[in-house]
Amino acid sequence: MHELNPPSGDLPQHAAALLERLRARGPRVHCVTNAVAQNFTANVLLAAGCVPSMTISPEEVGQFVAGADALLVNLGTFDKERREAVEIAVEVATQHKVPWVLDPVLINRSPSRAAFARGLAERAPKVVRLNAAEFAALAGRDGNREALSSFAGQHGTVVALSGKTDLVSDGKRIAAITNGDSLMAKVTAMGCAGSALIAAFLAVEPDAWRAASAGLLLLGIAGELAAREAKGPASFAVAIVDCLHTVDGKAIVQHARVN
Amino acid sequence: MHELNPPSGDLPQHAAALLERLRARGPRVHCVTNAVAQNFTANVLLAAGCVPSMTISPEEVGQFVAGADALLVNLGTFDKERREAVEIAVEVATQHKVPWVLDPVLINRSPSRAAFARGLAERAPKVVRLNAAEFAALAGRDGNREALSSFAGQHGTVVALSGKTDLVSDGKRIAAITNGDSLMAKVTAMGCAGSALIAAFLAVEPDAWRAASAGLLLLGIAGELAAREAKGPASFAVAIVDCLHTVDGKAIVQHARVN
Amino acid sequence: MHELNPPSGDLPQHAAALLERLRARGPRVHCVTNAVAQNFTANVLLAAGCVPSMTISPEEVGQFVAGADALLVNLGTFDKERREAVEIAVEVATQHKVPWVLDPVLINRSPSRAAFARGLAERAPKVVRLNAAEFAALAGRDGNREALSSFAGQHGTVVALSGKTDLVSDGKRIAAITNGDSLMAKVTAMGCAGSALIAAFLAVEPDAWRAASAGLLLLGIAGELAAREAKGPASFAVAIVDCLHTVDGKAIVQHARVN
Repeated sequence: MHELNPPSGDLPQHAAALLERLRARGPRVHCVTNAVAQNFTANVLLAAGCVPSMTISPEEVGQFVAGADALLVNLGTFDKERREAVEIAVEVATQHKVPWVLDPVLINRSPSRAAFARGLAERAPKVVRLNAAEFAALAGRDGNREALSSFAGQHGTVVALSGKTDLVSDGKRIAAITNGDSLMAKVTAMGCAGSALIAAFLAVEPDAWRAASAGLLLLGIAGELAAREAKGPASFAVAIVDCLHTVDGKAIVQHARVN
Repeated sequence: MHELNPPSGDLPQHAAALLERLRARGPRVHCVTNAVAQNFTANVLLAAGCVPSMTISPEEVGQFVAGADALLVNLGTFDKERREAVEIAVEVATQHKVPWVLDPVLINRSPSRAAFARGLAERAPKVVRLNAAEFAALAGRDGNREALSSFAGQHGTVVALSGKTDLVSDGKRIAAITNGDSLMAKVTAMGCAGSALIAAFLAVEPDAWRAASAGLLLLGIAGELAAREAKGPASFAVAIVDCLHTVDGKAIVQHARVN
Repeated sequence: MHELNPPSGDLPQHAAALLERLRARGPRVHCVTNAVAQNFTANVLLAAGCVPSMTISPEEVGQFVAGADALLVNLGTFDKERREAVEIAVEVATQHKVPWVLDPVLINRSPSRAAFARGLAERAPKVVRLNAAEFAALAGRDGNREALSSFAGQHGTVVALSGKTDLVSDGKRIAAITNGDSLMAKVTAMGCAGSALIAAFLAVEPDAWRAASAGLLLLGIAGELAAREAKGPASFAVAIVDCLHTVDGKAIVQHARVN
């Protein structure tokens, strides 16, 4: 007996096409992100073919978001200036229909940050990208497939859970991606990079489930290729950005492990 | 018939001499710069032979600038703290005759930042380093050679316009530098690095036109040499800093393409 | 005639054992550190086997420190937010008996920062890690062995002075470490990395003199191994982080030069 084709069956081909579209269009992705991740995130986006902008100044963030093609909201090193910037950025993104990604970094370590993230999750992010501990803090339960689907369905969002296997659910469809390398956990801001790439794909793909899957596929495949030549976490971080620049659609299709 | 020797004819030899002087003196360059660029800028300056200092705290920036050999004012990720820091830094630099460079990052995307930059341009920066879109926002017109010369002459400054060809004008003399590599546009803060190197050369050369040309020559040549061994933008970023450390005056003369 | 065994005689073996313990436990090290160093410090800690956390928000830093295994207080790019964060972090660390390291960056250039650092030195940091100019600003005298011992004894702390030879004194014992490479001075935040590694070892070793010595030994040895394959300061910075990840206890014992 044959399995029914899962909806994720054509994700690799679709991600490959999205990558070509991304490079053709070069969308601008505005990032309100943490101090540790700013430089790496900008370089990841440039390597993938985007134009990053990074200001978090409350005076300016609105005009930067208004003209952006996508927005990343990352709650790492969350302080007063970033809180103010996020409020404005999400408001403007909603008005201007700029798709946005929520990355609720380390909310499992900060109840006040978790409360803020729960409020943001009600404001229609296209995707919430996080790890298992962060999902538990956000949703109040463990991140199994049913919990992800339930959270996604209730919030009308896509949940992209990073881990040894990445799970991407929009409440109806679920993709399980097993690309990646263990060195990814030894480089700071690697999760943030995944969220940034998801934002990049949202700029060129209205189906947020496909965009999120493409972002994590691209990062995971770049990670696998990078690991082949890395001698440790820092040369790995260099190589993964190089690979984000050189990987093409054919490599996506060849290396993708998704079901 | 022979061309008249342009004033830029001896720039490579002069830049080579300046690089030796820079390394002999190890000047301190204070940088009020954006959050994305701080780490890369500090490493670029160290590699070239300088001592960077980077505080933007309004309480401290004055004393750091007072004793510095040059100042970089970069308007990226411009917020309240940076605005206050810039006001103090430029005031102190003027008092203490510390030469300074203005890098009006992304003023084409922020009218308020552009207005602030126009005010700074009136306060006698030795050099304004920017790209074509930023020049248009600053000067209200396209950055052709005549426009650069006109702006430089009116403001008593040097305009250093980065692009496929870098143009450096003081209103009378103009240098056109064609060194560099396309990967430079794929690394965040690379323009900021050029401005920082210009500040470095201002610390050892009172002729701002020569200092600015030397800074962009050095960066462009390091970029060309780095591209030979880069596999993508991140290994390129590593290699260009390595080259800034290893390039010597002889290599400057050998590789310079300027007229 | 044989020398008496100095107390530093078994430091290499001890540092080797501490490194294994560090990797087995994976302690969380909270860092209140400067904007230039945040990314590099996080990657250094990850490479060595720790979990870094980096927020400086006054609203959150207390809860991050309360549950941390060690704390780094670094005074670079010191501003109002960092001052407030440090006050809270040290208060909470004291209450919760979280061992902490003071790194009084560039206090020789800022009298107000130096005054603040002197106040912190009275609040029982386990280790003060600094360079010669910073020691002079902190202690009011040159950092010879007697001065270090005296300062350490009076303050009940360990002084770890970085330089061509690193000196680590707790007032009674002194270790002199000659590992390292001259390229370490050409990478920004390398001193900060040493302080972070000392904090890491404090998380697994109550004897602060041994912890501080282990941190500087590890960094120095990683630096030596990295220099073998570096082409300049940026490839060196990549290689030293790689080495922090791959070095094992055996390599520590083999390469340590301490007496």
